[in-house]
Amino acid sequence: MDFSSKLLENAVYEMSQLPGIGKRTALRLVLHLLKQPENQTNMLAEALSKLRSEINFCKSCHNISDTEICEICSNPKRDSSIICVVEDIRDVMAIENTSQYNGMYHVLGGKISPMEGIGPQDLNIVSLVNKVKKGEVQELIFALSSTMEGDTTNFYIYKQLEGLKVTTSTIARGISVGDELEYADEVTLGRSILNRIPFESAIKAS
Amino acid sequence: MDFSSKLLENAVYEMSQLPGIGKRTALRLVLHLLKQPENQTNMLAEALSKLRSEINFCKSCHNISDTEICEICSNPKRDSSIICVVEDIRDVMAIENTSQYNGMYHVLGGKISPMEGIGPQDLNIVSLVNKVKKGEVQELIFALSSTMEGDTTNFYIYKQLEGLKVTTSTIARGISVGDELEYADEVTLGRSILNRIPFESAIKAS
Repeated sequence: MDFSSKLLENAVYEMSQLPGIGKRTALRLVLHLLKQPENQTNMLAEALSKLRSEINFCKSCHNISDTEICEICSNPKRDSSIICVVEDIRDVMAIENTSQYNGMYHVLGGKISPMEGIGPQDLNIVSLVNKVKKGEVQELIFALSSTMEGDTTNFYIYKQLEGLKVTTSTIARGISVGDELEYADEVTLGRSILNRIPFESAIKAS
Repeated sequence: MDFSSKLLENAVYEMSQLPGIGKRTALRLVLHLLKQPENQTNMLAEALSKLRSEINFCKSCHNISDTEICEICSNPKRDSSIICVVEDIRDVMAIENTSQYNGMYHVLGGKISPMEGIGPQDLNIVSLVNKVKKGEVQELIFALSSTMEGDTTNFYIYKQLEGLKVTTSTIARGISVGDELEYADEVTLGRSILNRIPFESAIKAS
């Protein structure tokens, strides 16, 4: 693309560095900003740079937080004997939305992925193991996505916990509520039969 | 969505003000920026606010430009007797990409659209008419999109030019090169038959 202005070209280039945003979309977004009041662009620019420079991670669970210890970790009404291990903050938000969980979280910050050069030392695993070593945690729930990387990460953490007194569980895999059986993939359907649950508890949950 | 951080919430909100970007996508983009070096966020923020504060429009054609008169308008090799009337800078870039046009442009900055509250006075129409009044322009090519708004705008400008010595034309509408006839809509197909061109000129163009 040939731009008539270096300023425009630069803004489009920086915008197109975001994932899923190509040059054309970036141009559309930048031209949109130009049509809006100047204020809007400044608020966006300020919000982004402020976020980046002042962002804080909870010292306990590594979730994004404005305070040293996040609201969830410092809430005395939550059960600190259960920790749900997740990949990033989006998973925390998704689980919180269900209102079905009242324990703590531990945000790993990613999954072990040799292909992307992410090893165990890049994730918040040591602090998790240390938390368990203190002896107050009774259960760890692994809630990583069930991909090769997720399974590897689960297994790595599981190995690190050997000899420690803690129960580990993983979230149930199965057919989504409302889905038709015929469209489900075989692995999921197979697992949902192997891990079937008593009908009485299914009634209770719904 | 419940955010664990006001800074994050604010950044996601500002990002989701962009067209086509919802809250979820905004969160994904913001979390991506958090994983990248701090530099990248600052460059993006700076590029956007710099663009907004220092942006300049060509005094002649109203295209975005870093100089008072843009590169196209100040290029002596281009034919200043033909002006192509377009909606915005993206259209200029698209036509420039074809390398088939060597005249000037005039960027209206939009189309007449009573529904969106855009009237003729909001567009760069007066300066276009004044340019024609000077008598040096021989042809105006209307290259607005062929919607109700585009046709209205074309017709409005055409009416303003009454009595002035200038030829007006509009870009050809027809079946896209490579398209199958059976999938074309009737209006386009109908027009492409009415406005058929001599076979010899079609051979020359391809």
